[in-house]
Amino acid sequence: MRVGVLGARGKVGAEVCRAVEAAPDTELVASIDAGDDVEELARSGAQVVVDFTHPDVVMDNLRFCIEHGIHAVVGTTGFDQGRLDQLEEWLAEAPGVGVLIAPNFSIGAILMMRFAAEAAPFFESVEVVELHHPDKADAPSGTARRTAELIAAARREAGSAPMPDATSTGLDGARGADVDGVRVHGLRVRGLVAHQEVVLGMPGETLTIRHDSLDRVSFTPGVMLAVREIFTREGLTVGLDSLLDLD
Amino acid sequence: MRVGVLGARGKVGAEVCRAVEAAPDTELVASIDAGDDVEELARSGAQVVVDFTHPDVVMDNLRFCIEHGIHAVVGTTGFDQGRLDQLEEWLAEAPGVGVLIAPNFSIGAILMMRFAAEAAPFFESVEVVELHHPDKADAPSGTARRTAELIAAARREAGSAPMPDATSTGLDGARGADVDGVRVHGLRVRGLVAHQEVVLGMPGETLTIRHDSLDRVSFTPGVMLAVREIFTREGLTVGLDSLLDLD
Amino acid sequence: MRVGVLGARGKVGAEVCRAVEAAPDTELVASIDAGDDVEELARSGAQVVVDFTHPDVVMDNLRFCIEHGIHAVVGTTGFDQGRLDQLEEWLAEAPGVGVLIAPNFSIGAILMMRFAAEAAPFFESVEVVELHHPDKADAPSGTARRTAELIAAARREAGSAPMPDATSTGLDGARGADVDGVRVHGLRVRGLVAHQEVVLGMPGETLTIRHDSLDRVSFTPGVMLAVREIFTREGLTVGLDSLLDLD
Amino acid sequence: MRVGVLGARGKVGAEVCRAVEAAPDTELVASIDAGDDVEELARSGAQVVVDFTHPDVVMDNLRFCIEHGIHAVVGTTGFDQGRLDQLEEWLAEAPGVGVLIAPNFSIGAILMMRFAAEAAPFFESVEVVELHHPDKADAPSGTARRTAELIAAARREAGSAPMPDATSTGLDGARGADVDGVRVHGLRVRGLVAHQEVVLGMPGETLTIRHDSLDRVSFTPGVMLAVREIFTREGLTVGLDSLLDLD
Repeated sequence: MRVGVLGARGKVGAEVCRAVEAAPDTELVASIDAGDDVEELARSGAQVVVDFTHPDVVMDNLRFCIEHGIHAVVGTTGFDQGRLDQLEEWLAEAPGVGVLIAPNFSIGAILMMRFAAEAAPFFESVEVVELHHPDKADAPSGTARRTAELIAAARREAGSAPMPDATSTGLDGARGADVDGVRVHGLRVRGLVAHQEVVLGMPGETLTIRHDSLDRVSFTPGVMLAVREIFTREGLTVGLDSLLDLD
Repeated sequence: MRVGVLGARGKVGAEVCRAVEAAPDTELVASIDAGDDVEELARSGAQVVVDFTHPDVVMDNLRFCIEHGIHAVVGTTGFDQGRLDQLEEWLAEAPGVGVLIAPNFSIGAILMMRFAAEAAPFFESVEVVELHHPDKADAPSGTARRTAELIAAARREAGSAPMPDATSTGLDGARGADVDGVRVHGLRVRGLVAHQEVVLGMPGETLTIRHDSLDRVSFTPGVMLAVREIFTREGLTVGLDSLLDLD
Repeated sequence: MRVGVLGARGKVGAEVCRAVEAAPDTELVASIDAGDDVEELARSGAQVVVDFTHPDVVMDNLRFCIEHGIHAVVGTTGFDQGRLDQLEEWLAEAPGVGVLIAPNFSIGAILMMRFAAEAAPFFESVEVVELHHPDKADAPSGTARRTAELIAAARREAGSAPMPDATSTGLDGARGADVDGVRVHGLRVRGLVAHQEVVLGMPGETLTIRHDSLDRVSFTPGVMLAVREIFTREGLTVGLDSLLDLD
Repeated sequence: MRVGVLGARGKVGAEVCRAVEAAPDTELVASIDAGDDVEELARSGAQVVVDFTHPDVVMDNLRFCIEHGIHAVVGTTGFDQGRLDQLEEWLAEAPGVGVLIAPNFSIGAILMMRFAAEAAPFFESVEVVELHHPDKADAPSGTARRTAELIAAARREAGSAPMPDATSTGLDGARGADVDGVRVHGLRVRGLVAHQEVVLGMPGETLTIRHDSLDRVSFTPGVMLAVREIFTREGLTVGLDSLLDLD
């Protein structure tokens, strides 16, 4: 597969370039960044493009790719419904072309969220603990909030009872934040990168699902999976989830 | 639901009796043990029977149940193919009756195995660690062996590469036991009950699925789930898995 | 050693009786509970008494023991400074007699607290997570608060800087409770017993100290240690710590 | 403090240079590597030198430092008894000069080993699990072997009983490697860096001490601690342990 990378000199893009070059079934044919000519993508014969650029330029990049029949795998942020509608419109006129937009390319994080939501209705209690480096600005993390929302939705659908909690005295904050009825706790500890644990319990047993992200390169297996799968996914796909075939 | 318990004075059976009495939608109508008259099951109007008895008597118990149109949830061990075939034959003549045979009623353990097998093909490395009290006779545990076999099967089906391992020097046993190419490690530590961890890794991230069984009562939620679901499962069902509706 | 137990028919006392009977170097000579005659302790020749009774009766019990030259190991709660002063006074007139008052006989919990406090000044960040069954009334747990206070005191003494935390947006409670500048998080999950984790971090590495209490019997090794050591500890000792000889 | 670095262009040395420059109380006055003139150390007025070079050159470096009254903190490997004796001899003629040789500058790893050894005699069972990336050549890791040896020594000294283990059937390797009677298990999983867990257990409770090394920079706090403390340690010191004042 002939692969082009947009945003090739950014930290993330550079890792993608390395992964594309290292894999036996992909070839890096174009490395483009700000100031370079995007026409190079077409000239190089790229079949699929990976875009980790900026919200300001990503739509122009995608229009170019779609018009030239090049698939796109996109990690750039900032997609609202208006942008997704616009992409659908462009893709409608480009049969056979696939675009994947994903906010998170960590396969481990996606599996953690999916398993937590699947298991949640079988247990009486479910809580989420996220652990990050202390330079992070938000608490809880976006992934933890999303996980709690998925757990809450799964329990609502299954008609699960509210979780038991006899706490009557204590200190403010001890029981964490409440996200849709799911307690979420955030630790900030120097040395950590990005970690999350979902603890589920019923009488006599607990199930713990933990994801540890230890290095920036954790997104590359997800990007490479998408590069390989996008050839079979015509139209717009949102989220890496749908590429993970679980039964 | 009117529930009878066979083996009601054993440790496990006694817990089942307690759980049946405590639940709002089940009623304990018969508690039978060695020496009691099994006819009491029919007289009491039991709709479903839970059997935690002995391999020597379980087939007689089940013939009685099937003949009297009583569903059965069975945790007794010792079912080989011959016994399963016999049950199928009896059930063929008793339309509407359901029998569930399960070697393990821990919902947490079953989910751990299922999630481990589903996730395994996405990762480069997968290892299993089981931790038990030091009075246990076998190492690794049966659950750990079964988990490793399921992981190995999932990877074979997906065409996964062998796991990387550069170990060239060391001490015998340091890398654990090899079960179908999956490394399994067994700890024996006083104070522990029954615990298992599956560690999966790819570049930059790991996913850990851990099950802790802390008390004998951990099987009761699985038994109660089976009691409620067996009404809709005509014929023979093996394993609690199929009752856990995951998508 | 000839041992008597006060509160022998309570849950805790009964476990102590079992442990005293099981050990090769101790003999159970008196099992006393409400309604029994405490004089039996003297008649039986008890050398040391273990008291797990009630704040209302424990002082009378201890006066009796001290007057009769019997050592005491006490797990009953409710000791304020006035009671400790009273004990000191009585012991001053009973040379050779030792009394140990301890709020916690779990050796594991005591080591966890000690190690956490010793390590705390070497790290930039320290947080405490406690996990309990959901029937617990207070959050955070008393042990977690005590651990945080010990960590804070050790850091104050060492002149440690405040811990880094860039959190600027988020949800109330996400960062836990603040105990003397140490963040404490409390989970309440069905199936758990009593667990605590202290997470310490500095650039590139973390140290985690975790204590799991899985069964009521976890206090018996601490009680037995105290029974053996009290013979060499004349006067009043508060806390099991001082019996754990670490260097 | 005026600090020189030998091996300044190696991976480790470069991190040390960064840490020295970043700290408020240290100044980087000389960065020397192969080909540079070691006299620069003296000319720059360095008070302490950090040496991460090579066994072939480290003795010459240290003779130079000692002769010029410069303290040295050394992470270079290859020190046998002969080399240590030589250093003692040189230091005897240089009053006031201190040299610290340490095989491991990770404060977290050192505390893990110390706490494990201190706690070991109080528990019935102790096992070690180490987890590393799969490119590692030896199993178990050197740190895990050293930890097991320290645990075994502490138990021998305390007269601890052998650990309980009823294993009678199973697979080769399931119970790990035996190091002085302590079981050690090694996992090799892609995505991991260097991690170790010591699990200690007695009836009803367990204590787990875990060290996670997530990034190469984990040695810099230990190096900086040594740079600051070496001024008060005349003569030869082996191991970072003795600089960690625990009581």
